[in-house]
Amino acid sequence: MEKQAIRELILAMETSALEQWNSGDPSGFLAIYAKDITYFDPFQQKRIDGLDNMRAFYAQFAGQGGGVDRYEMIDPVVTVTEDVAVMSYNLNSWAGDRLYPWNCTEVYRREKDGTWKIVHNHWSFIRPMELDWLK
Amino acid sequence: MEKQAIRELILAMETSALEQWNSGDPSGFLAIYAKDITYFDPFQQKRIDGLDNMRAFYAQFAGQGGGVDRYEMIDPVVTVTEDVAVMSYNLNSWAGDRLYPWNCTEVYRREKDGTWKIVHNHWSFIRPMELDWLK
Repeated sequence: MEKQAIRELILAMETSALEQWNSGDPSGFLAIYAKDITYFDPFQQKRIDGLDNMRAFYAQFAGQGGGVDRYEMIDPVVTVTEDVAVMSYNLNSWAGDRLYPWNCTEVYRREKDGTWKIVHNHWSFIRPMELDWLK
Repeated sequence: MEKQAIRELILAMETSALEQWNSGDPSGFLAIYAKDITYFDPFQQKRIDGLDNMRAFYAQFAGQGGGVDRYEMIDPVVTVTEDVAVMSYNLNSWAGDRLYPWNCTEVYRREKDGTWKIVHNHWSFIRPMELDWLK
């Protein structure tokens, strides 16, 4: 598989999972997280490790609706090696008139069965931003 | 090179670069950033791409002193494939009595010459935290 084809595949996988997430459905990401996923977001006091823990973590959001009305994936870059694709992008997500400006890292690994799975996911906010509603 | 040996090498490289950074010297990280590095931290409005741009970015910190008196690297995990090592850890950095609680991601790639270089670096803050001095 050529690098450019891998980049396009990863971009399509990420976009699909993100759009599901935005509509309140975490199953898109859960389906492509590896068993040994490590996960950061700004609200957790500690990294979350492993697919089982991610399933438990995402279960709390079930049925809440995603709340993201519109998003803009900015300048995604996918750095490809033989068995890993490192994707990073800036993301603007709007919930009503609130803008959430994100940094996003996704590290995809080619598994033995040829599928690509996320082994690391890091979400963070960009500052400065409107902080009152996040405290 | 066995996976455990790679983990130990990456941990040593990261610790060394971090301790240099904490003392105000960014050259440790610059020496192990790949040419196609992508970089996130909470204060940049956009990802920084490429070693030349990272050199320019870090130049502004030269001679300022690092300001980190003490740090604690919490539970580093290094996920290793043939040519990539994905490191993530929580980091507590103290500057005087201020605690900065970080999430850190470092993606190391084995280069053609056998050395390991960072192709992606993502720093972010954990919330909630004392925000007043960061606005």
